[in-house]
Amino acid sequence: MSDIGVTVKKSEDFSEWYVEVVLKSGLADYAPVKGCMIIREDAYAVWEKIQEIFNKKIKATGHRNVYFPMFIPEGLLTKEAEHFAGFTPEVAWITQGGDTPLEEKLAVRPTSETIMYATFSKWIRSWRDLPIKINQWCNIVRWETKATKLFLRTREFLWQEGHTAHATSEEAEAEVMYALNEYKDLIENYLAIPVLVGTKSDSEKFAGALYTTALEAIMPDGKALQMGTSHNLGQNFGKVFDVKFIGEDEKDHYVWQTSWGITTRLIGAMVMVHGDDKGLIMPPKVAPVQVVIVPIPYKGAEPVAIAAKAKEVAETLKAKGISVVLDDREEYTPGWKFNQWELKGVPVRIEIGPRDLKQQQVTVARRDTYQKTAVKEEEVVNEVEKLLVEIQHNLYAKARIGLEEKTTTVHSYDDFKKVLSEKGGFIKAAWCGSAECEAKIKDETGATIRVRPFEKEEPATTCVYCGEKAKEMVYFARSY
Amino acid sequence: MSDIGVTVKKSEDFSEWYVEVVLKSGLADYAPVKGCMIIREDAYAVWEKIQEIFNKKIKATGHRNVYFPMFIPEGLLTKEAEHFAGFTPEVAWITQGGDTPLEEKLAVRPTSETIMYATFSKWIRSWRDLPIKINQWCNIVRWETKATKLFLRTREFLWQEGHTAHATSEEAEAEVMYALNEYKDLIENYLAIPVLVGTKSDSEKFAGALYTTALEAIMPDGKALQMGTSHNLGQNFGKVFDVKFIGEDEKDHYVWQTSWGITTRLIGAMVMVHGDDKGLIMPPKVAPVQVVIVPIPYKGAEPVAIAAKAKEVAETLKAKGISVVLDDREEYTPGWKFNQWELKGVPVRIEIGPRDLKQQQVTVARRDTYQKTAVKEEEVVNEVEKLLVEIQHNLYAKARIGLEEKTTTVHSYDDFKKVLSEKGGFIKAAWCGSAECEAKIKDETGATIRVRPFEKEEPATTCVYCGEKAKEMVYFARSY
Repeated sequence: MSDIGVTVKKSEDFSEWYVEVVLKSGLADYAPVKGCMIIREDAYAVWEKIQEIFNKKIKATGHRNVYFPMFIPEGLLTKEAEHFAGFTPEVAWITQGGDTPLEEKLAVRPTSETIMYATFSKWIRSWRDLPIKINQWCNIVRWETKATKLFLRTREFLWQEGHTAHATSEEAEAEVMYALNEYKDLIENYLAIPVLVGTKSDSEKFAGALYTTALEAIMPDGKALQMGTSHNLGQNFGKVFDVKFIGEDEKDHYVWQTSWGITTRLIGAMVMVHGDDKGLIMPPKVAPVQVVIVPIPYKGAEPVAIAAKAKEVAETLKAKGISVVLDDREEYTPGWKFNQWELKGVPVRIEIGPRDLKQQQVTVARRDTYQKTAVKEEEVVNEVEKLLVEIQHNLYAKARIGLEEKTTTVHSYDDFKKVLSEKGGFIKAAWCGSAECEAKIKDETGATIRVRPFEKEEPATTCVYCGEKAKEMVYFARSY
Repeated sequence: MSDIGVTVKKSEDFSEWYVEVVLKSGLADYAPVKGCMIIREDAYAVWEKIQEIFNKKIKATGHRNVYFPMFIPEGLLTKEAEHFAGFTPEVAWITQGGDTPLEEKLAVRPTSETIMYATFSKWIRSWRDLPIKINQWCNIVRWETKATKLFLRTREFLWQEGHTAHATSEEAEAEVMYALNEYKDLIENYLAIPVLVGTKSDSEKFAGALYTTALEAIMPDGKALQMGTSHNLGQNFGKVFDVKFIGEDEKDHYVWQTSWGITTRLIGAMVMVHGDDKGLIMPPKVAPVQVVIVPIPYKGAEPVAIAAKAKEVAETLKAKGISVVLDDREEYTPGWKFNQWELKGVPVRIEIGPRDLKQQQVTVARRDTYQKTAVKEEEVVNEVEKLLVEIQHNLYAKARIGLEEKTTTVHSYDDFKKVLSEKGGFIKAAWCGSAECEAKIKDETGATIRVRPFEKEEPATTCVYCGEKAKEMVYFARSY
């Protein structure tokens, strides 16, 4: 394998493999500032796809994008006590502007509830001003002290945060589920990553929320990754920030609020779930490049005719809206190019050599299965379109099997610990509902409740920890 | 006029008018943090249009978007002395993460040359790695101490910064002009604002650049506004950050670099140049809403038929890709709606009342001229498409006349001062090229050289300040 290739096997050292794939594929790089990362061209292109897909969804349902300042005065951030307590350990503080110390230090937003809702109280007068449904794409800072993990744990990351205010609790509840379902569609049908959805336990909910719903995926190393959250904030922030409206009943009411977000960590999840020993595998629907064409001009063969054919195929595919790169660089060999584009995870590769030219065909290679087929020239568009759909489905199907294989129902705490240490993954177990049992399980095993499914199943046993009557079946896991 | 309308005339108190229009139209709002602003729905939608237009341009020419950290360690920012001196008075500093004081304070990026080029030195090995052509859309902080001016002067704003590295000086020069020309197209043909282009004098160039090119527009109050800049950085940063490559000649060379940017201040310029006493006028090509339809259901008339017709017209226009709002809210009168949509600057309004219904027509009103015409139903699409083009052209033509009227050639320093105080605008004058004359003019009048045109004209007189032989004709103005 050339020096550009991945040197660690995914199955042998998952963590090392991940770092190597992310760096060598050019998705990201460490930055000259501790704890931060550079989101490079291909990763940013995936983020732009995510933005495009999600913007289309939320704009169609009346949400609009805005931009609020990233500086939050300390006095504002501390206003909602539980919220502040939740975020303060990881806030970065501006204390100096130019040469002048600031009178009040400013937090770099760890999330924007406080600054937005202080403004909502100004914008909202009557029921006519409701609902407010806004969203922003921006950078977020959480001052992590644990080791940096590209895409998953960095001091700055990019996200989208939706914030809404409604006249009724019912509307807010519907909005929470709306955002969660759109996230599910995005993550499963575009990023090809299956998720579990449900509510968080009280100890895992967003600081200041009534309740938090979440989407959780399982990574190949058996650890869970939170993919997105959608919070019902109830009237909690409304009361703290005095966000009131005069109802049709001409009385004052506090608004009902929601907030919801997904971050650039989704890109990390995509790498982990789909990648293999040769590098990334990009789901076709979000791949920056869907097809790469590599002409293979053997000496003495017909380089001009091959180049012309490669160009023709590229144009034909582009005309169909397919994202194509024609790699006709002369300073690299075809073999080097194959490795590079495999590393970058381009779903489909088309090779055109002398034999292909003679037989009026091209050779098509799938990134996910490495399968190679000869395809007649007139069939190229159909075949590529079909393959892109197939690869998208195949990646999801494989990941779905991974999720199922990594989900184990246990009937005792001994089983719980055994499965967790030997296999990891999601552990489905009966829980009595007490925060105490939850805390003890976390202390003793490192596993937390990832989700409480919306559809309640009859508990299979008594509480897996205390043995008292169980209230529900929940999913535990160790997580990123 | 209703309380939602603008109470100040543009011609009477331009500055007050501007603030009122921006706030009341809902483009922006002051934030609960000093010196910052909230970019609201319609303004952010214009910014998204700008992103879409500009991304399309630069991606077609091989530029790719990325995201670099916003934190720049002090040691990195200070590395290029001139650059640091230029930015340090307005840098915001992070000194604390969580409860812990940082060992080295971090600047919030005032621009990203330093952090990017420290990384370029890692990415670039040989001529094969060149050119690098990247761009990022992000937030920027400059700790202004002067009064906040919405969109024009805030401590945080949004921008795009393009950064490129090339093997030759010629390529870098071509890139500088490429970015400048694309900005010109964006600003003139989409935002409908005519600009002067040229180079900056040495005292006005970007800190650390070889030279700076810029686009300058004139506002109705006679002050110039810098609309964008494109810098040739030469090898200056390359030498400081050791960005070298092995050439085809197998020798080491420093790269040649450029950087270029436009900011959300373009939105402020758009408001100033096109708005009138009733509010904003949005150029159709960037208008979040291009057409608003207001049904006018008189009592006793046919509300159901009118509503159906309004919906039908809305759907027909939407099918043509036109952005339409059907304002069928029942809690507001048509008159209130007219005022509101005029305030928001929607280019075309369609009214449908009982008489229109009867005569199978609609009434179409232009925002720019207030002209109203009856249009036969089957002609609506054609007429609206034609009008959107006409309004776009008309706004540009009017602004072009404004620019010409506000440009005066002077032949003496007395004239210079007289024109500046009585009329303002661009003052075209002969300049000897000395920084001293430039500085004295600035001290005495507040006017600076906005651009030195690319095409050199024979100086009409000796230097307007010192009377020595002039080198060129340049444009002076007071500026924002």
